[in-house]
Amino acid sequence: MRERHRAWADDFLRDNTSLIITDAEERKGRWKELFGNDHPIHLEIGTGKGQFITGMAEKNPDVNFIGIELAKSIIVMAGAKLKESGVTNARLLHVDAADLKELFAQNEISAIYLNFSDPWPKKRHAKRRLTFHTFLEQYEHILQPGGEITLKTDNQGLFEYSLVSFSEFGLKLKEVHLDLHSAEVPENVMTEYEEKFSAKGQPIYRCRAEFT
Amino acid sequence: MRERHRAWADDFLRDNTSLIITDAEERKGRWKELFGNDHPIHLEIGTGKGQFITGMAEKNPDVNFIGIELAKSIIVMAGAKLKESGVTNARLLHVDAADLKELFAQNEISAIYLNFSDPWPKKRHAKRRLTFHTFLEQYEHILQPGGEITLKTDNQGLFEYSLVSFSEFGLKLKEVHLDLHSAEVPENVMTEYEEKFSAKGQPIYRCRAEFT
Repeated sequence: MRERHRAWADDFLRDNTSLIITDAEERKGRWKELFGNDHPIHLEIGTGKGQFITGMAEKNPDVNFIGIELAKSIIVMAGAKLKESGVTNARLLHVDAADLKELFAQNEISAIYLNFSDPWPKKRHAKRRLTFHTFLEQYEHILQPGGEITLKTDNQGLFEYSLVSFSEFGLKLKEVHLDLHSAEVPENVMTEYEEKFSAKGQPIYRCRAEFT
Repeated sequence: MRERHRAWADDFLRDNTSLIITDAEERKGRWKELFGNDHPIHLEIGTGKGQFITGMAEKNPDVNFIGIELAKSIIVMAGAKLKESGVTNARLLHVDAADLKELFAQNEISAIYLNFSDPWPKKRHAKRRLTFHTFLEQYEHILQPGGEITLKTDNQGLFEYSLVSFSEFGLKLKEVHLDLHSAEVPENVMTEYEEKFSAKGQPIYRCRAEFT
């Protein structure tokens, strides 16, 4: 991060503590207070520059969205995008998503989005993939019964791995797309990466899987 | 079928009744008698011209293979291929695979192969797809506990549909390949169609799913 951007990022974080949350653990079990309503809460893990969460929040005013992002220089860009859009049903968490059970109470979340997560292609790094069973255990805990994971990726290996990992864990696949943009999926909101990647004609994989 | 080929096909069927079985229903529950051993029996539904079953039989002498094929003009080609190879652990069934439970007893089969089945792309034809739940019920009945289905296809729609259908039925995905020939899968035996199709650089999809 360049020095000037870092200073801007620090200022932005300091000035927007109600949009970009840093004291997430204290809000465990009380997230709906932040939104002031009982709408279902959807979680995006790895929000990046925020195009997805902003688009989703605009498109689904009856859903509250929380986006988690570790990188400070990135999350402030997502924050700026949300601010500009004027939506009130989205917040960002500047935390490492290492243990979601410390951030959210059991059944507090209704849906989880994993968008273009790091594929960690080497076998010995499998446990870092966000669809490894230790993560699925966390998702299962914080999701309400029947809660869904929606996974999007351009990475063939991660998609193959995740389908099997979901199935082994007992999740049910509700939908599978092997070339998302060749299909009619009106609810899809593109991420920045997805837009760039699919413009090159590469297929985007997507699936929805449900805890039963 | 041309007239000359039809005459040859009829002759071939008449002369090879121990290779191409037509009285399948009478053998229900007694298929191992035909092979004279207790080796597991694997079933290919839609054997076509027989390259897969012949290659599998050669490669796996401790497994017995049964291939089902409806088309007379095609099954005789598979029969000729098996005869030429000299394998003794494969038989063909000239029947319509409409109700497998009439052909095989409960738990009599150890594995099922669906190779490049008709995709029936129209939604209203979904019930004809060999991975529709009514077929999965038949497979579950004739397969022993832990029995597997291996599905191969070049058809994206059929593959997407089948992953979801398997999952909804409670099958567990053990392995998924979205481009089979880019991976190391030494146990794979190509069908005629697969050879032609993959030579054009098109991806072949494959998955293994287990009844639990």
